[in-house]
Amino acid sequence: TRRYTITLLPGDGIGPEVISVAKNVLQLTGSLEGIEFGFKEMPVGGAALDLTGVPLPEETLLAAKQSDAVLLGAIGGYKWDENQKHFKPETGLLQLREGLKVFANLRPACVLPQLVDASTLKKEVAEGVDLMAVRELTGGIYFGKPRGFGTNENGDEIGFNTEVYAIYEIDRIARVAFETARKRGRKLCSVDKANVLEASMLWRQRVMAISSEYPDVELSHMYVDNAAMQLVRNPKQFDTIITNNIFGDILSDEASMITGSIGMLPSASLGEAGPGLFEPIHGSAPDIAGQDKANPLATVLSAAMLLKYGLGEEKASQRIETAVLDTLNRGFRTGDIYSEGNKLVGCKEMGKEVLNSI
Amino acid sequence: TRRYTITLLPGDGIGPEVISVAKNVLQLTGSLEGIEFGFKEMPVGGAALDLTGVPLPEETLLAAKQSDAVLLGAIGGYKWDENQKHFKPETGLLQLREGLKVFANLRPACVLPQLVDASTLKKEVAEGVDLMAVRELTGGIYFGKPRGFGTNENGDEIGFNTEVYAIYEIDRIARVAFETARKRGRKLCSVDKANVLEASMLWRQRVMAISSEYPDVELSHMYVDNAAMQLVRNPKQFDTIITNNIFGDILSDEASMITGSIGMLPSASLGEAGPGLFEPIHGSAPDIAGQDKANPLATVLSAAMLLKYGLGEEKASQRIETAVLDTLNRGFRTGDIYSEGNKLVGCKEMGKEVLNSI
Ligand SMILES: CC(C)[C@H](C(=O)O)[C@@H](O)C(=O)O
Ligand SMILES: CC(C)[C@H](C(=O)O)[C@@H](O)C(=O)O
Repeated sequence: TRRYTITLLPGDGIGPEVISVAKNVLQLTGSLEGIEFGFKEMPVGGAALDLTGVPLPEETLLAAKQSDAVLLGAIGGYKWDENQKHFKPETGLLQLREGLKVFANLRPACVLPQLVDASTLKKEVAEGVDLMAVRELTGGIYFGKPRGFGTNENGDEIGFNTEVYAIYEIDRIARVAFETARKRGRKLCSVDKANVLEASMLWRQRVMAISSEYPDVELSHMYVDNAAMQLVRNPKQFDTIITNNIFGDILSDEASMITGSIGMLPSASLGEAGPGLFEPIHGSAPDIAGQDKANPLATVLSAAMLLKYGLGEEKASQRIETAVLDTLNRGFRTGDIYSEGNKLVGCKEMGKEVLNSI
Repeated sequence: TRRYTITLLPGDGIGPEVISVAKNVLQLTGSLEGIEFGFKEMPVGGAALDLTGVPLPEETLLAAKQSDAVLLGAIGGYKWDENQKHFKPETGLLQLREGLKVFANLRPACVLPQLVDASTLKKEVAEGVDLMAVRELTGGIYFGKPRGFGTNENGDEIGFNTEVYAIYEIDRIARVAFETARKRGRKLCSVDKANVLEASMLWRQRVMAISSEYPDVELSHMYVDNAAMQLVRNPKQFDTIITNNIFGDILSDEASMITGSIGMLPSASLGEAGPGLFEPIHGSAPDIAGQDKANPLATVLSAAMLLKYGLGEEKASQRIETAVLDTLNRGFRTGDIYSEGNKLVGCKEMGKEVLNSI
C-alpha cells in the first residue's frame, strides 16, 4: 500500500460539509486502490480567526507543508467581512498559497452534457465547452510591492498596489500552461493587456519566447477585455488559457459561471515541488451553511485532481471522476444543479450516492 | 439657431464609415432642431501615425479641446500591433482621454426587445437587461506611476505598473455614478477587489462616504470576480455599476457582449468641464473595413449621447434614439445583428434608413 498524508482544511461556511464528503470518497477510493490516507484536519480562514486570532495559524501552514497534498473547503463569511486586512479570512488563503509556493492554478470549466441546461447561455453556445484556465497565483498585483496607503506628490491621500512580474515567474507559469495545453487540445491563448500595461508587455514577450519550446502547441494572444467578451460570445473557441493573477481571478470565475454549475468545479494549485493545494472554486456560501444543501461534487472532483496532479494516482483519480458522472447519470442533483425529472438530494446523500457509484 | 463645433475623429478601420453616417445624422437632426454644427475632421490613432508619426498629433488634441464635443470612430489595426508603446494607436486614445480630462466613462448595455435573439444568453436571462457601467477613465493602473521595465532587488528583470487612486479621483467618479443612478433605477453597485487590494479598500471607503450625499440611491458592493460571474448569471440584477479603469474595461466589455449586439452600443466620456468624448464601444474591425458592412448604429447612438450629455440637447438626442428604434422596427439590420425575416443592409444604406426615420 502507498501511504499519503493529506491536510484537510475545512474552513468556513459549507466548507466542513463538503470536506467531510470528500474525505469519505478519498478513503473508500484509497481502500480499493491500495492507498492509505492519513488525514490531519487544521483550521484556516474565519474558523482559524475565531480559534486563534489569525487566519492562517503557523501550525496549519506547517502541517500543510509537511503533508503530501492539501484539500481546502472554502473560506470567508459576513462575520469577518469588515475585518482589517491582516484579520480577513482571505488573507489566510493568500498566505497559504504564498507559503506553499503554489504559483500555478489550474481551473477547468467544463459543461457536462448532463448539466448543459444549468448554463444561462443558449444550449448551442454552452454545450461542449471544455476549457482550462491556468492562472498565475503567487505574483502580480496580489503580492506586488510597494502597496498600501499614503500621499502622492500633490499631498493627496492615495491607496496603491503594484502589478509586477519577473521573467522567471512568467516563464515557469508559461511552461505549466504549455504542458497543460499539450495534454489537451494543443491550443494556448495568453490573455493580457499588452496594449496598455508594461507588465503585460513583458508577459507577452516571455510567453512568446517560451512557446519556441512547444512548437506543437498553437499560441495566440488576446486582450483581457476581448477575452471577457469572447467567453460569453463563443466559449468553445478556448482550449487552454494562461493569464496573470488578477485577470485569472476574473476570467476563471466568468468561465465557471458559463458552465452554470460552479458547484461542480474543482481547482488545483501547484508549485515546483512540495504539496499542491486543491479546492472547489465556489465560496463558503454562508447563506446555506449547516443546512445540508451544499453541492459536494466540486470538492469531490478537487479530491480527484489531488490524486492526479498532487499524488500521481491517475487510476484512483479516474475512479472518482467516473463515479461522479455515474451519480449524475443516475439522476441525483443538489439544489444548485437541480432540474425537473431528477432526484433532489442534500449534501450528505449526494456523498453517499458517490460512494455507491464508486 | 444654436451653434456647436464638433471634432470628428474617424480613426482607423471602419471608423471613417461609421463617422460619416453619424455626421449626416447629426446634420439632419440639427437642421430640424435649429442647431448648426461646424465639423472639423482630424486624424487620430493609426491614421495619425501614418500621417504624422504620432498617434495623437498636437493639432488634433488642440482642435478637440477647442470644440464643444468630440466624436470618435475607432482606432487600431493589425498594421500597428507590434509598434512600441509610444507609437501604438491605443496610446493616442489614452492621451486623448487624459488630455480632455474625461474621467467618467458611461457605457450603457441595453438589450433591445428587437434584438434579444442576438444575445448568446437565454432569452429569459437577456431580455430586459438595461444597465449602465460608469468606469473611471483617467486614473488607476492605466496611468499610475511608477511603471516600466527594470530589475527587482534580486536582480530579476521585471515589468511593472501601479494601480493607484487618490481620494479626489474616487470622490468625483462616485458623484457622477450616484447622479447617474439617481436618474435611473436608484441602485448603484460598486465593484472592487477590496478583499485583496489597498487601492480597492480606499475605493470602497470613499464610495461609502460619498453615498451619504445620496440617501435615495441604494448602494451595494461586489468583488470583481463575483461581478464577472453575476453578469453572466443574472445581468438584470444590475442598474448602475461603478468601477475603476481596468475592471471597467473588462466588465463593460463583458456586459456589452451580453447584449449580443456590440455594434449597437455607444459610450460617453465626460470631464468636470470642457468637451466630452463620444465613441462606439466596438473596435476598428479591420477585417470588414472599407466593405460597407459595418453597423453604424453604435456611432449614431454615440452622437445621440453627444447631444444629451455633451451639449444638453435632450430633444435632438431623443429624436435620434427614436429614429434608430424606428429603423430597427422597420426591419433593417446590418450583418452583425441580422436574423431571419429582416432586411440585410450595408453601412451606408443603414445610414440612409436612419435619415428616413428622422
Ligand atoms: C478569496 C480571494 C482572495 C480569492 C482570490 O482572489 O484569489 C478567490 O476569489 C479565488 O479566486 O480563489
Ligand atoms: C483600446 C484600449 C486602450 C481601450 C482601453 O483599454 O481603455 C479600449 O479597450 C476601451 O475600452 O476603450
